[in-house]
Amino acid sequence: MTTAFDYIHANQGRFREELKALLRIPSVSTLPKHDADILRAAEWLVADMRRIGMQAEVIPTAGKPIVYGEWLGAGKAAPTVLTYGHYDVQPAEIADGWDSDPFEPVERDGKIYARGAIDSKSNVMAQIKTAEALLATGTPPVNIKLLFEGEEESSSENLALFVAQNQERLRCDVCVICDGSMTDREQPDMGYALRGVVSMELEVFGPPRDLHSGAFGGTVHNPVQALAEIIAQLHDTDGRVTVPGFYDDVLPLDAEERAELAKAMPWIEAEWHDVAAAPAQWGEPDYNLHERIGARPTLEINGIAGGFAGEGFKTVLPARALAKISCRLVADQTSQRTYELVRDYIAQLTPPTVRAELRLISIGEPVVIDRHSPAVQAGLRAYERGWGRRPHYSRAGGSVPITLDLRRELGAQMVLMAFGYKGCGAHGPNEHVYLDMWQRGMETMLYFYDEIARITGK
Amino acid sequence: MTTAFDYIHANQGRFREELKALLRIPSVSTLPKHDADILRAAEWLVADMRRIGMQAEVIPTAGKPIVYGEWLGAGKAAPTVLTYGHYDVQPAEIADGWDSDPFEPVERDGKIYARGAIDSKSNVMAQIKTAEALLATGTPPVNIKLLFEGEEESSSENLALFVAQNQERLRCDVCVICDGSMTDREQPDMGYALRGVVSMELEVFGPPRDLHSGAFGGTVHNPVQALAEIIAQLHDTDGRVTVPGFYDDVLPLDAEERAELAKAMPWIEAEWHDVAAAPAQWGEPDYNLHERIGARPTLEINGIAGGFAGEGFKTVLPARALAKISCRLVADQTSQRTYELVRDYIAQLTPPTVRAELRLISIGEPVVIDRHSPAVQAGLRAYERGWGRRPHYSRAGGSVPITLDLRRELGAQMVLMAFGYKGCGAHGPNEHVYLDMWQRGMETMLYFYDEIARITGK
Repeated sequence: MTTAFDYIHANQGRFREELKALLRIPSVSTLPKHDADILRAAEWLVADMRRIGMQAEVIPTAGKPIVYGEWLGAGKAAPTVLTYGHYDVQPAEIADGWDSDPFEPVERDGKIYARGAIDSKSNVMAQIKTAEALLATGTPPVNIKLLFEGEEESSSENLALFVAQNQERLRCDVCVICDGSMTDREQPDMGYALRGVVSMELEVFGPPRDLHSGAFGGTVHNPVQALAEIIAQLHDTDGRVTVPGFYDDVLPLDAEERAELAKAMPWIEAEWHDVAAAPAQWGEPDYNLHERIGARPTLEINGIAGGFAGEGFKTVLPARALAKISCRLVADQTSQRTYELVRDYIAQLTPPTVRAELRLISIGEPVVIDRHSPAVQAGLRAYERGWGRRPHYSRAGGSVPITLDLRRELGAQMVLMAFGYKGCGAHGPNEHVYLDMWQRGMETMLYFYDEIARITGK
Repeated sequence: MTTAFDYIHANQGRFREELKALLRIPSVSTLPKHDADILRAAEWLVADMRRIGMQAEVIPTAGKPIVYGEWLGAGKAAPTVLTYGHYDVQPAEIADGWDSDPFEPVERDGKIYARGAIDSKSNVMAQIKTAEALLATGTPPVNIKLLFEGEEESSSENLALFVAQNQERLRCDVCVICDGSMTDREQPDMGYALRGVVSMELEVFGPPRDLHSGAFGGTVHNPVQALAEIIAQLHDTDGRVTVPGFYDDVLPLDAEERAELAKAMPWIEAEWHDVAAAPAQWGEPDYNLHERIGARPTLEINGIAGGFAGEGFKTVLPARALAKISCRLVADQTSQRTYELVRDYIAQLTPPTVRAELRLISIGEPVVIDRHSPAVQAGLRAYERGWGRRPHYSRAGGSVPITLDLRRELGAQMVLMAFGYKGCGAHGPNEHVYLDMWQRGMETMLYFYDEIARITGK
């Protein structure tokens, strides 16, 4: 195995340039104008996997293409590890507050800044480069399957279909979800839960066109105001979501799990103060920060627009107002049911002076995996070897919609692994990746393959 | 006098082209990038006034230039009428919902569509063209002073200074405010009150940068949500403004005035249904529509922005959110006091989980003029001759900030006149002017000069 580690060290400069090349492709899945970029990113990944000796192809779907590659040279007697990742990214514009072009990677202070640096192109590249190191220096101890999708940031629905239709091809003993990031740069954590996310658009309509606020102000219910009034009724003053039935399907935490989650609290608190850094903490008072993030659902306003909010002033009474709303879900909530609950409550809140419409945009279900399984335990040991510290158990607040489908269709043991730090600006401006963590991530993946080869006894 | 009417009819095609030429200049006063256009519009007006025989000049100020022209050939024995108008316009972009370029006038079905068509370039041009008709066909019965400003849509503060410093030059017997528009195309109304307007920006700050809504959702008070919660507390469910002290300085209506205002209600109601056309009426239940528009103050959300509200979806937890808020004021409210009341109330409403800031952007005071004065009565008769119907008294919902300064500094009788229809999309997309009303407006102005010459007995 030593040679694979040497290979990673010896080739780190080239690996870095390859990561930058991938980051330069603006593979934004939520904006149709980037469809060609998505395809370009997929083809780039396939070319790299073929170069290192994997069988790989771009698989077209009704949406964005899937990238799949495999190396089965360890033989039927060896275990097979399938790792999932995604190569699509969130939208980004320099005007959002970036210090440099989000699609022109900049290396500074041991970090690379670019959209997708942490979410999730460094994870994708860590997987390919680990495979490359093993293939270039000897024989990997496991069969390797890599599955990268191009619509994680939108819906994953075409990947779900592909997984359901390709159970044999994707068959594996262990399925790794490689996305998300860790709470601390030095203290790894081992995730076993992901939140789902259902996204929606709420639009409020008033007069058929914008009006002069002098001519009609005081006689028309302003749609921005009406939207604000609806939004204000979606939480109580303690931060609980007030949508009737919203929490009904949430699995309660037992005492043992709460005790495990509490162990990570110093790091979660520190991260909150370093990264979130809001004027004060907020949220359901009956749950600690870790639980609020990983074990409780949310209702978030991701964006709002209406009337004239640009430079200058326009005393308009707007015709409409729009809010983008998403709910992070936890087991056993479902997207469809949550959408219906929110929709019905908003219908009830909407006064007759305006019209409101809640549109379902995309869905993604939550998942909890068995943290006591042999594969998760192998992951714990791999992190301990890679980082030098035993990980805490953690529940992640983010979402990887496909996890549930992979578990159901493949029946494999699931493991959540990621090698970045949560304070790296995923989804925001100046997203970046720490290069030392990226390096450790590749090493940890080598240890993980080794641990899996040992435990499966194959 | 007959020849002046003939002149207006004979030259209507040319007048129309001249109006279009002025409309093509995007003299947007609230956006600094249009400063050169503002100057171009001012110079265009001065050139036209000089051409018809008036002494005219562009007067620079610390802000946008003032346009002033006069013809004093009627002599000291004749009365002097000073008319105020404004040549600046609100911002407009085709993306706001315009059917055609807002700064490329389109003539269709007896209307001209362009930003500024109704607010207020047609009014400005009606004044110049009336003067032209009188000067070209004989001797006007009154001395004519025309004062056009370039920052009505922002603040009028430099005009106020100019008026205070040029009392002698602007001295007049009657001061006409020519802005705003009528409730009905056939039934004129005679305004005697204007609302003031104070504009403000409310910004709510949460975390120092946008966050991933999965990583921190549930632990950070979302600034868009917090903004919505603040906005939602600014009105009660009946539409009353809840800011403590907000109504304290509002002059109550007496029974006689309410009876006069009620006479216009059928037209106000019809206009509301034609133009506002919201799903239902809204506002203070103790006041009818006319009173809500003209005799009651408002607090309006003119625009809102925060997070990602564009095409696609971005599950961000935004760092900040912004609302543009304006209050329409009625006598004896003041901008400064109103700003302070709103600011203090918002400070009280803001939870410790976010930081909020209310910035004062611009001010404009309300005014009520004596509707029984000889000049207003002359205006009534002029409208009756021009439109064939005696006007109703009306209180306008819009604002002409300079009115109060003109009254105070010049000590003249004030008259409010305007020749457009309220349903012409002022401040919104597809703003337009009816050409037949524009024509009638010029005729009414000729009658008005005649009426003033008779009553002043000079």
